[in-house]
Amino acid sequence: MRFTHLFTKTRKEVPADEAARNAELLIRAGFVFKEMAGVYTFLPLGLRVLNKVEAIIRDEMNKAGGIEMRTSVLQSKDVWERTDRWSDDVVDNWFKTKLKTGGEVGLSFTNEEAYSNILTQYVSSYKDLPIYPYDFKSIFRNEARSKSGMLRGREFYWKALYSFSKTDAEHTEFYEKMKAAYRSVFDRVGIGHRTYLTFASGGSFSKFSHEFQAVTPAGEDTIYLDEQSGIAVNKEVHADEVLAELGLQRDALVERTAIEVGNIFSLGTRFSVPFGLEYQDEHGSAQPVIMGSYGIGLSRLIGAVVEILSDEKGIVWPQAIAPFTYHLVVLGEKREEGDKLYTDLVAAGAEVLYDDRPDKSAGEKFADADLIGCPVRLTLGGKTEAGKVEYKLRTERESRLIAVSELR
Amino acid sequence: MRFTHLFTKTRKEVPADEAARNAELLIRAGFVFKEMAGVYTFLPLGLRVLNKVEAIIRDEMNKAGGIEMRTSVLQSKDVWERTDRWSDDVVDNWFKTKLKTGGEVGLSFTNEEAYSNILTQYVSSYKDLPIYPYDFKSIFRNEARSKSGMLRGREFYWKALYSFSKTDAEHTEFYEKMKAAYRSVFDRVGIGHRTYLTFASGGSFSKFSHEFQAVTPAGEDTIYLDEQSGIAVNKEVHADEVLAELGLQRDALVERTAIEVGNIFSLGTRFSVPFGLEYQDEHGSAQPVIMGSYGIGLSRLIGAVVEILSDEKGIVWPQAIAPFTYHLVVLGEKREEGDKLYTDLVAAGAEVLYDDRPDKSAGEKFADADLIGCPVRLTLGGKTEAGKVEYKLRTERESRLIAVSELR
Repeated sequence: MRFTHLFTKTRKEVPADEAARNAELLIRAGFVFKEMAGVYTFLPLGLRVLNKVEAIIRDEMNKAGGIEMRTSVLQSKDVWERTDRWSDDVVDNWFKTKLKTGGEVGLSFTNEEAYSNILTQYVSSYKDLPIYPYDFKSIFRNEARSKSGMLRGREFYWKALYSFSKTDAEHTEFYEKMKAAYRSVFDRVGIGHRTYLTFASGGSFSKFSHEFQAVTPAGEDTIYLDEQSGIAVNKEVHADEVLAELGLQRDALVERTAIEVGNIFSLGTRFSVPFGLEYQDEHGSAQPVIMGSYGIGLSRLIGAVVEILSDEKGIVWPQAIAPFTYHLVVLGEKREEGDKLYTDLVAAGAEVLYDDRPDKSAGEKFADADLIGCPVRLTLGGKTEAGKVEYKLRTERESRLIAVSELR
Repeated sequence: MRFTHLFTKTRKEVPADEAARNAELLIRAGFVFKEMAGVYTFLPLGLRVLNKVEAIIRDEMNKAGGIEMRTSVLQSKDVWERTDRWSDDVVDNWFKTKLKTGGEVGLSFTNEEAYSNILTQYVSSYKDLPIYPYDFKSIFRNEARSKSGMLRGREFYWKALYSFSKTDAEHTEFYEKMKAAYRSVFDRVGIGHRTYLTFASGGSFSKFSHEFQAVTPAGEDTIYLDEQSGIAVNKEVHADEVLAELGLQRDALVERTAIEVGNIFSLGTRFSVPFGLEYQDEHGSAQPVIMGSYGIGLSRLIGAVVEILSDEKGIVWPQAIAPFTYHLVVLGEKREEGDKLYTDLVAAGAEVLYDDRPDKSAGEKFADADLIGCPVRLTLGGKTEAGKVEYKLRTERESRLIAVSELR
């Protein structure tokens, strides 16, 4: 994409109320626009990153047997009353609104009820199970505090998968499969080395839930990490009996702040029973469906990548989710060669952001390249010999001259 | 996809309040689930269709120079007050909700304000224009009546593109390009032959806007169509002076009901002026940006396709937006051959819905295939010779035997 087609520009200023480093960088580089605290528009660069993260997660969910759908944002009061989660006394972050025709509706803050309600239409026999539907959608949470940029949104983009299994054994098998799928997601988006499987409270549903916590000073959570095994416990379950059960030594644990980039829950029959979501087993008797939930906030994950991988000059995108692989800079008289290289690379299938602006200095262009953070900067400048291009990784300080033919 | 992986089933019943043929078929076939009047979840089959429609529209928008982003659903009161469209006295279909921290926010019912507001950050010079950003998102309209199924949603999925041009001439050139792009979208989704460019009121912005009206008895609009030229006028501008201006003869026009599947508007400076969205021209003087808007409701478009192309047995999807090309039915003892054909077709890149259910009769499977509406039904039954498969187009009554090798 040419800079002249991309309408955004890098900015020096961010909104006065923006305190989070992730949002500051994403706004300055032109990935997102802040509509209000906790609400961001994905600008063209940001949408490219979001789409790549989504494709990685979709791939992992499909490989695990998931099937994609898209549930509505507007939710019926009567559906949520069945699990006693409509009342603001029970759930404190609902956004609700009124229909012209009378009555209140809510904006999805999670999806257990919607899925359970839909599946009562389709599940009746053991032959219908297990199933693993999921969706990507915008989720709305009426947060009292929204000062962490993309890490805690009032409106954010997420993936949620729900598992519907016949038995505890079948549930556990899939739950373990999802642990592996989540591990793979965080590896692929570039923060696997900083992300730890963390035991957390299972609520009223089960003994533990599992979080994937990405360690960074920007995190809002506190975890206790056993660096040897890579296992952590959330502060909320950091107690002697839990440590003993997990075989962890209190003295071996280090305290870290971290961002919860994913969580998986065993839900048991907490939601299936109120909806009457049950199946006839092989012997003809009715059994409640065993559920699990598996969430990843994509906007938060992007914020976490930015917090963890950026440096003082800007964002450092891993190749797999970078908006473009190459950031091609042409200076002065090299415009014609630049156009040719750009066209050739794009024709070869490469993703290229082409800074073809005639009125910007080398310094400005390099600063923008560092801020935007594509993995490879290519420069054609006055001193570049014909047939060569200056090649610099975003993660390295030095550039080197390579033959244009060496690029794919 | 195997039927056993697809969790939905065809249904005989629809919700009691569902009066629209499009929603009735889409619900019975398992494409959508009705959350409440005017609000539908896209089930896996429905999402496949939605994704294909989206890909076609995206392709046409990109070819015309569009650049994709994704704006937020939650909208600030102060932004909409600038154009005097916050008040419920002016806009009667807002959904509004309250922040915990105080103050009201709205749910996007359209995007002019959001785009104008964002672009004030990025447009300052003639060098920044023209630009054509667009997005796909869920849109919310608090409709008093929602009895037309997917044709009039309270929550629906749409594409909106906004053009930002320097001059009227530049605007008009793009506006004409979008007419052609829209024509191409409706051709590609299979209802081009029933869709007419229709002159409608331009509101306060310009003399006319243009609608694309798909003729069907299910339509909510009335148009007067000149079948010779393929040009129509909406009832709202069906007046002698308009007909004279367009060179249409009143007597030559036929009255039709139709669904507005797309509309394009010249907005002039209606939105740019209140936002101070202006650019410095080549001579250094400030000029307001000239805007246009170009919308397509994807859910409505899918509903229109169903209304127009279905028959008494069910939906008839055009190849380009069908959930699958092939609906493969195996009967009785042919299971092994069916598995092989399914695997081979999928390996060859074909999209196949495979009815591998062991406990359904031929009649039930054929009825489901007709209801779901994939373009080609393939059957392996007791009487099918080895190496052959029964091939039947959804649009035809008769099937014929072909060699499996004839399928791609």
